[in-house]
Amino acid sequence: MGELRKDYILDRWVIIAAERAKRPHQFKQQEVKEEVGLCFFCPGNEKETPPEMYRFEKNGTWQIRAFPNKFTAVAPEGDPTIRTDNAFYTWSNNYGKHLVLVETPDHSKQLWDLSIDEITQVLRGYLEVFFHVHGDKNIKYVTIFKNHKKEAGTSIVHSHSQIIGYNKVPEEVGREVAASQNYNFCPYCDVIQRERGSTRRCFENDNFIAFCPYASRFPFEIWILPKQHVTHLEDIKDLPGLASMLKMALGKLKELNAAFNYVLHYSPTREDNLHFHIEIMPRLTIWAGFEMNGTVINPQPPEEAAKFYRGED
Amino acid sequence: MGELRKDYILDRWVIIAAERAKRPHQFKQQEVKEEVGLCFFCPGNEKETPPEMYRFEKNGTWQIRAFPNKFTAVAPEGDPTIRTDNAFYTWSNNYGKHLVLVETPDHSKQLWDLSIDEITQVLRGYLEVFFHVHGDKNIKYVTIFKNHKKEAGTSIVHSHSQIIGYNKVPEEVGREVAASQNYNFCPYCDVIQRERGSTRRCFENDNFIAFCPYASRFPFEIWILPKQHVTHLEDIKDLPGLASMLKMALGKLKELNAAFNYVLHYSPTREDNLHFHIEIMPRLTIWAGFEMNGTVINPQPPEEAAKFYRGED
Repeated sequence: MGELRKDYILDRWVIIAAERAKRPHQFKQQEVKEEVGLCFFCPGNEKETPPEMYRFEKNGTWQIRAFPNKFTAVAPEGDPTIRTDNAFYTWSNNYGKHLVLVETPDHSKQLWDLSIDEITQVLRGYLEVFFHVHGDKNIKYVTIFKNHKKEAGTSIVHSHSQIIGYNKVPEEVGREVAASQNYNFCPYCDVIQRERGSTRRCFENDNFIAFCPYASRFPFEIWILPKQHVTHLEDIKDLPGLASMLKMALGKLKELNAAFNYVLHYSPTREDNLHFHIEIMPRLTIWAGFEMNGTVINPQPPEEAAKFYRGED
Repeated sequence: MGELRKDYILDRWVIIAAERAKRPHQFKQQEVKEEVGLCFFCPGNEKETPPEMYRFEKNGTWQIRAFPNKFTAVAPEGDPTIRTDNAFYTWSNNYGKHLVLVETPDHSKQLWDLSIDEITQVLRGYLEVFFHVHGDKNIKYVTIFKNHKKEAGTSIVHSHSQIIGYNKVPEEVGREVAASQNYNFCPYCDVIQRERGSTRRCFENDNFIAFCPYASRFPFEIWILPKQHVTHLEDIKDLPGLASMLKMALGKLKELNAAFNYVLHYSPTREDNLHFHIEIMPRLTIWAGFEMNGTVINPQPPEEAAKFYRGED
């Protein structure tokens, strides 16, 4: 038998369908197939990308680069004002900035292959790009995320992240902020204390904890949170500690060749109190018609996923 | 330039990224590859499925069969009471019923290949199964949906639908009901009047209209609604009219070999007033990390999709 479970604070439900459970290795996917042809993200092809807006160099060569996405979803043009007309039509231009951040010059490496120092520098790169995008006062939120493999929405193998800032707080972040405000304290701080003693705990270091959330929507879903209350990446002093947790979690997913997304969640205004966290979402199942109505079927109990992360299976 | 758009009544936003727009035929997918081996849904293999609970016969052979899903997401066992303990943990058993409805004995036909009469009978089959599942008082809502092709969550080629009843109203349906109650009238009735005169209108017959919704989340997303206010499939008198609209919409998607889901939306209690409709969601793009935060990027304006459905491109 399985369970119907609700997210800690959101009206977001999952069915943990234990009847469909598989062993971790049964989720293992094919290795990434190398695409053929020119890689625009490789050193030597810098002229093939739109003009660079951030670069981190070491010994005279770039380690990290960021530039506008060639296939942009938003653009800093048009009217960012959200208008309603004829009662049911609400819109603005798709105003915003959409960037790509290449995490390493080495085409053969993925994020988890980099050193803690190098991953720390990627996180610093996120911050640099965040400040650049956030500088536009029409932009209300900057989503920092990574897609890995085709099933997670990217066909580009060269390790990269994306940054989209637009004229709106994303719905899911807005709901987290609103739900957090229903408490006299930070609910995530409380959840950390509870999950620390649960069978869903994965790893911990001085300043961070990683666990598989109670109402995981994805097999092997894992969240990384600072143990102290912090609302923004900018306020995290121990970036190497965060980099190390990321390397550990993604290194485990590598064993499954899993496609995944991760997304940074943070407080849009700093006046609200949303607890910074990273949600890593492996894409090993497909959401079908039933899921499109809300409740997601996850064939893997998060308690099993946590065992995998702890190396107990 | 594209637009950021909000759903008619829900807090559900999309970015119509016109910069990424493609011509309809560029969305065309590979044809369904036939799976090898025994098909459990074919005549002669009835003993391979769990015990049948509904059958429609013609001339002594079955045309439609329904039976429990072998890989069930929910089961009529355990405790359906939703409980909260330790503040952040809310759960019940995954109580419910999960059925499969085989739409035709003919392995080589898909739903759109059937006659209007045959599709009408499939809709009647939905109702029979609905009543069976809904008879369990612990079940709060019965989701009737169809997945077609692997990208939409099924690897079974033989044309079939699924029915899941469980101890909860799905979140998206709950939000539609709540949002509808913000009006003194049915907002969908109003939307129908507006979309009827818009460039998003696709087809119409005496009792039904189909249009591509203003804030389409999927390329070629199309909704079918009764023009008169009706809250449930049971209250639709002109089932052949609905069958005909379904055949037309799916027949067009066939030209693209598109994977799709469709889901029936209806009033959970009949005391609320939700306008019955069918949402057809082609799965030609993949939701990536950005989409997981709420706002969905759709590379196709619904106005272009409607042209395709009207045969104008």
